[in-house]
Amino acid sequence: MIPAKGYAAQSAETDLAPWNFERREVGANDVQFDVAYCGVCHSDLHQIRNDWFPGIFPMVPGHEIVGKVVKVGNAVTKFKIGDLAAVGCMVDSCRTCENCQNGLEQYCLKGGAPTYNGFEMDRKTPTYGGYSNTIVTNEDFVLKVPEKLDLAATAPLLCAGITTYSPLKHWKVGKGHKLAVLGLGGLGHMGVKFGVAFGAEVTVLSTSPKKEADAKKLGAHNFVVTTDPEQVKVAKNSFDFILDTVSAEHDFSLYLSMLKTDGVHILVGLPSEALKVPPFSIVGGRKSVAGSSIGGIQETQEMLDFCAEHNIVSDIEMIDIKDINTAYERMLKGDVRYRFVIDMATL
Amino acid sequence: MIPAKGYAAQSAETDLAPWNFERREVGANDVQFDVAYCGVCHSDLHQIRNDWFPGIFPMVPGHEIVGKVVKVGNAVTKFKIGDLAAVGCMVDSCRTCENCQNGLEQYCLKGGAPTYNGFEMDRKTPTYGGYSNTIVTNEDFVLKVPEKLDLAATAPLLCAGITTYSPLKHWKVGKGHKLAVLGLGGLGHMGVKFGVAFGAEVTVLSTSPKKEADAKKLGAHNFVVTTDPEQVKVAKNSFDFILDTVSAEHDFSLYLSMLKTDGVHILVGLPSEALKVPPFSIVGGRKSVAGSSIGGIQETQEMLDFCAEHNIVSDIEMIDIKDINTAYERMLKGDVRYRFVIDMATL
Repeated sequence: MIPAKGYAAQSAETDLAPWNFERREVGANDVQFDVAYCGVCHSDLHQIRNDWFPGIFPMVPGHEIVGKVVKVGNAVTKFKIGDLAAVGCMVDSCRTCENCQNGLEQYCLKGGAPTYNGFEMDRKTPTYGGYSNTIVTNEDFVLKVPEKLDLAATAPLLCAGITTYSPLKHWKVGKGHKLAVLGLGGLGHMGVKFGVAFGAEVTVLSTSPKKEADAKKLGAHNFVVTTDPEQVKVAKNSFDFILDTVSAEHDFSLYLSMLKTDGVHILVGLPSEALKVPPFSIVGGRKSVAGSSIGGIQETQEMLDFCAEHNIVSDIEMIDIKDINTAYERMLKGDVRYRFVIDMATL
Repeated sequence: MIPAKGYAAQSAETDLAPWNFERREVGANDVQFDVAYCGVCHSDLHQIRNDWFPGIFPMVPGHEIVGKVVKVGNAVTKFKIGDLAAVGCMVDSCRTCENCQNGLEQYCLKGGAPTYNGFEMDRKTPTYGGYSNTIVTNEDFVLKVPEKLDLAATAPLLCAGITTYSPLKHWKVGKGHKLAVLGLGGLGHMGVKFGVAFGAEVTVLSTSPKKEADAKKLGAHNFVVTTDPEQVKVAKNSFDFILDTVSAEHDFSLYLSMLKTDGVHILVGLPSEALKVPPFSIVGGRKSVAGSSIGGIQETQEMLDFCAEHNIVSDIEMIDIKDINTAYERMLKGDVRYRFVIDMATL
């Protein structure tokens, strides 16, 4: 086994703290890379706090992982030592179900292996995430990172990036469409960048007028303060799509009223409570509330290549790993523009 | 004005009782027909009881109306005296908005004129429905009824029929699709008939094992008792579409788990309470909860013609109008196969 160190939560009640553990030996199809940077996702906090379901402890969070390859197995063909590499939210899947066969590993019908807070496909070996110095992953779930992108700012693309890229591609959002992005955080700011890159007219919906300047700087064409009845009135029946990145409870009746007929409200955030959708708000106007989860491996690679081509990365604030618990507190208050990334050299 | 008689609720607290009122004179573009039959829709009861919103009283319900033309205006081209005619849920719309221009009058952006419990487009003149002896309507909102269909059994097509036909057409449900129909009532039994006619493999989902024989008689290929965990387990991830005709609160997490990846749960019932949709149940599998409301005028005509071609009508139980309040009680208990139709000759 390979000795590894990282930061872990020992239970849902404790803060993250240093922890030593082991990674598996590099198998024939495995790639080992040393983690240079790891993004901090809101779901890291949800999971160490058991907000969604009881977690597996000790838990090493982190699924926005980039670094440099230090070892490859005999059968590895995609990577060599020294290559840049990345791992996102999955490290394996059944590979045989209809969805896996169609490049939708994120919807593996048997349930794939999450990067942390889960088990490998043997359903016994716990997985540990990227808040650590090194990681060993089957090459099929390792992404190539284009050299021209800023490496630290690339880390959040592995979750915040693909989570917003994938639904915009799936619903073919682009030229001629009016896209609203709800919530301007880690996911939302990437949604704005991709929406603009795909040619849509992008509006940021926010309760906070203070975010307008930032939204415009990110490329948004319009900004609607959703607490202002006048602005809401103007926005009624105006959007083809809403990309909803909000993880807290919110008023679906309000947002659905802003969709055009046949509009789609795409949920990519994960509130802990059930959405409350008034029947009339979807029946009147044949509207939909849809969900989307990250993206498949091939699509994630496509997204990274698209980012290289269009020079898109995340806006980040770098932190030392010792400051992770403070960063969580700031994240909860929305005090981050727009993603914390841990400099793993500080471990 | 034309004297008319019908059954009306004088308030949300009173039963329906005979009431005399007036219809407008037949204008240049109007068609007057004597009502032969009127279907009894669950929404009639919702509306006279103020379940959705405060109603306009006295209220004459009924929006599944068929009969024979007795008078036409000078400018009417589509109808002549003696023709069979029908009116559904709408009697007018703005005719100028994007949706009206696209044959989606049911989603008129200015709000159309409902057949009852609403106002004409002057926003002042109350509309009265089909529980009455005669009706005067602009010809553009009057449908032609194919002579070969049983007239009484055609009445429910005007709401229950088009409400299920339209979404199945919109989502292109057909050969190769697995369609589940949730709830086997007035809407559900039409959903089964159309699903089968369109070539889908149709499964009825019901809490009641007693409905299986009926479901099969209507043409359903399969039947799942949703209170049986074993049957539910087999049904997981199996449907492309669920047509949800249930008007009471129900468990979205259960039904969404039966949809395949990218599956669509189409709501056509109108529960009084907000739907409670667990985020994971749509995000995991990129599923959608969509709504759909009746259909446009052109599509309603297309549906009636399709029914004539495929010999599809509603299964009905005919009642005398004096028994309407008892019929409501029976409808609430699900004791009707599958639609009450009032024989207006009994008025």
